[in-house]
Amino acid sequence: MAHSPNPPSALRIVFGQRLREERRARNLTLEDVAERSGLNWSYIAQIERGERNIGIDNIDALSRAIGVEAHLMLQ
Amino acid sequence: MAHSPNPPSALRIVFGQRLREERRARNLTLEDVAERSGLNWSYIAQIERGERNIGIDNIDALSRAIGVEAHLMLQ
Repeated sequence: MAHSPNPPSALRIVFGQRLREERRARNLTLEDVAERSGLNWSYIAQIERGERNIGIDNIDALSRAIGVEAHLMLQ
Repeated sequence: MAHSPNPPSALRIVFGQRLREERRARNLTLEDVAERSGLNWSYIAQIERGERNIGIDNIDALSRAIGVEAHLMLQ
């Protein structure tokens, strides 16, 4: 997912913050979530900071890795 | 968003079907949603068929275009 020319959507920020909150609430490191999701830990850190226009497949993979339903990660 | 090499995630299918249901429930055509969202109607049709790894910014744009909160579009 290349850096998007558009300004970050509100939803990107919501998902990033929720991902960080839920990850920390479960005492998971970025490396733990990387291992569970198959994604790169630095990419996950960028997602948490709202820097990436994450695709729906990776939203699914990260939600599963954290153990929270995807729709709850967008509220 | 190029065609993704990975198999479509379950979430992709959920969002596509929900988008089609909500669009039709409001008697909106693909062209209507394209105009509201600024996205191409044929891209939206591919999203509805689960053929694209849609980015979170476009999930936000399409949810706003339909008038349904994004998290509800993923249930």
